[in-house]
Amino acid sequence: MRIAIDAMGGDLAPREPVKGAVQVSRENPELELILVGDRDQVQAALAETGGSDNQIRVEHAGEVVRADENPLQVLRRKGNTSIGRVAELMKSGEAEAFVSAGNTGATVAAAVLSLRLLEGVRRAGIAAFIPTAHGRATVIDVGANLRCQPEQLFQYGLMASVYTRVILDKPNPSIGLLNIGQEDAKGNDLVKETHCLFNGADINYVGNLEGQDVFMGAADVVVCEGFVGNVLLKVSEGLAETIMILLGKTYGREASLSPEEQKTIKKSLQWLHTRTDYREYGGAPLLGVNGACIIGHGRSDARAVSNAVRTAAKFAGLHVNQHMIEEMHRVTSARC
Amino acid sequence: MRIAIDAMGGDLAPREPVKGAVQVSRENPELELILVGDRDQVQAALAETGGSDNQIRVEHAGEVVRADENPLQVLRRKGNTSIGRVAELMKSGEAEAFVSAGNTGATVAAAVLSLRLLEGVRRAGIAAFIPTAHGRATVIDVGANLRCQPEQLFQYGLMASVYTRVILDKPNPSIGLLNIGQEDAKGNDLVKETHCLFNGADINYVGNLEGQDVFMGAADVVVCEGFVGNVLLKVSEGLAETIMILLGKTYGREASLSPEEQKTIKKSLQWLHTRTDYREYGGAPLLGVNGACIIGHGRSDARAVSNAVRTAAKFAGLHVNQHMIEEMHRVTSARC
Repeated sequence: MRIAIDAMGGDLAPREPVKGAVQVSRENPELELILVGDRDQVQAALAETGGSDNQIRVEHAGEVVRADENPLQVLRRKGNTSIGRVAELMKSGEAEAFVSAGNTGATVAAAVLSLRLLEGVRRAGIAAFIPTAHGRATVIDVGANLRCQPEQLFQYGLMASVYTRVILDKPNPSIGLLNIGQEDAKGNDLVKETHCLFNGADINYVGNLEGQDVFMGAADVVVCEGFVGNVLLKVSEGLAETIMILLGKTYGREASLSPEEQKTIKKSLQWLHTRTDYREYGGAPLLGVNGACIIGHGRSDARAVSNAVRTAAKFAGLHVNQHMIEEMHRVTSARC
Repeated sequence: MRIAIDAMGGDLAPREPVKGAVQVSRENPELELILVGDRDQVQAALAETGGSDNQIRVEHAGEVVRADENPLQVLRRKGNTSIGRVAELMKSGEAEAFVSAGNTGATVAAAVLSLRLLEGVRRAGIAAFIPTAHGRATVIDVGANLRCQPEQLFQYGLMASVYTRVILDKPNPSIGLLNIGQEDAKGNDLVKETHCLFNGADINYVGNLEGQDVFMGAADVVVCEGFVGNVLLKVSEGLAETIMILLGKTYGREASLSPEEQKTIKKSLQWLHTRTDYREYGGAPLLGVNGACIIGHGRSDARAVSNAVRTAAKFAGLHVNQHMIEEMHRVTSARC
């Protein structure tokens, strides 16, 4: 399995993507990795991790899309960006999947421009795992498509349920629609119409969900517009951190804990941290493009990158796209 | 101070609103409360709490707007709903503030229809407190206005900063705009234009916030569309509960805690529960209407209702609306 990695993507690039590539290649001898980015910088980072590796090759791309740049403008203007190049490697068949923790908008734009959408798909959406009281749920979309149409949200639900079934090995995942109330009449026009589309289809739809239901694990797949999903995902990170600060510092001070009590609290918070750590979740696939594209968190470190590479390999190896195409043929939406 | 309470509003009505009214009136002899709802049911609930009280009178309203009904249609069709009646009591001057934990859409509609908006205000918005690592933040809007215009979000920021300053006694509160990235170019058209309006005004604007920043306390006021704010608020409740389940059950089982360790974890979770409990936050005001209207959580119990009544008294007593009108005159928005 050959996987291309945007070595310049993310706040900690190129060091951490390169380190992550080295780690994951050592543990997975079947992987061949292509690190794409500024050759000198990538080689230097490789040397830092203990030298090169015959599973890894470096492909030069001299330009980078920064976080504050407009993705489409930049991709058109700059000739050889690392993110444009990884998408091209996938298109030409030199890579079977790619991973980037760079500018999300640029990654989505490069993937859609190079790979195009799967037949019948209207928009690509990013599916991310979040922790719940019962394990994890898949949220789609977390930032590819900020303002959606009902039919797009409907397709997101189908694609993410297939992804969840195949990748988490969960039979017949339930689908819920994020709304501001559970009743049919609740919400804006977008969610009301989407609710109607889901209700009329032969799928495991459990209806409208409210914010508090999401983390209680009320559905395996949570569907929402990209703006809302992005807030949801990031809030979940922030709140977990906040709770750790509150319990670790404020409570510790207020309750005058004994050394033993402090130790107990600390151990439980470490456990919670692991349980809710985005680095463990292996990146988020861009569903709907004709290829395997895994988007990493902007703060990705080596562990996050290596987990994202594992997800990419699994996504391509288990033929998720083929299963999604079959599901989209099987399910027809109602008229609303 | 006379305050009208929708005794039929919320999942636990009329028992809990009535119980809350009795509690708060005993502790605050200066309050006169009007319980509005089905006379027989309200009298029965009053009898249950230990009889009537000369600070409390009952006003009959025979109809209720249920959670699954369309607010505007119902208010037009039903003649004497409890929510319509409390708003009318405020309009006529018989009450100086009102509290309802019923159908939020109906409360907003009744308030706006009866009381009208403050001069110059385009839309009313609900402002709710959420816990942060540094205390609390005010989120506006959490569900009155699901799809907003930039000028509406701009006014929300001004109104909520005044509310936060007066009610939390916090000088010059900072205002942040909820977005999917911190850079100027991030977000949909709505947030980009709102960001420009805030940037051009003489206010304490700290820029775009991402989801994780909100609970870290990056701004005192967080501005967003009602759909997003509603999800944010409810997610914060759900995630806090989820974390308590995870730490209390899953971690307890996995870590085979000793009785002492279990006790420590339990105590810390109880503390966290108090710290993040919406019942402590005293309801959420509908800012922008010409009156004092406090909206309670649908699950409000007696404590939540009594705290909401306290907020209503404070809102009216501190003349929050007058301060908001002055701020809106002081601040002019840029052209974007």
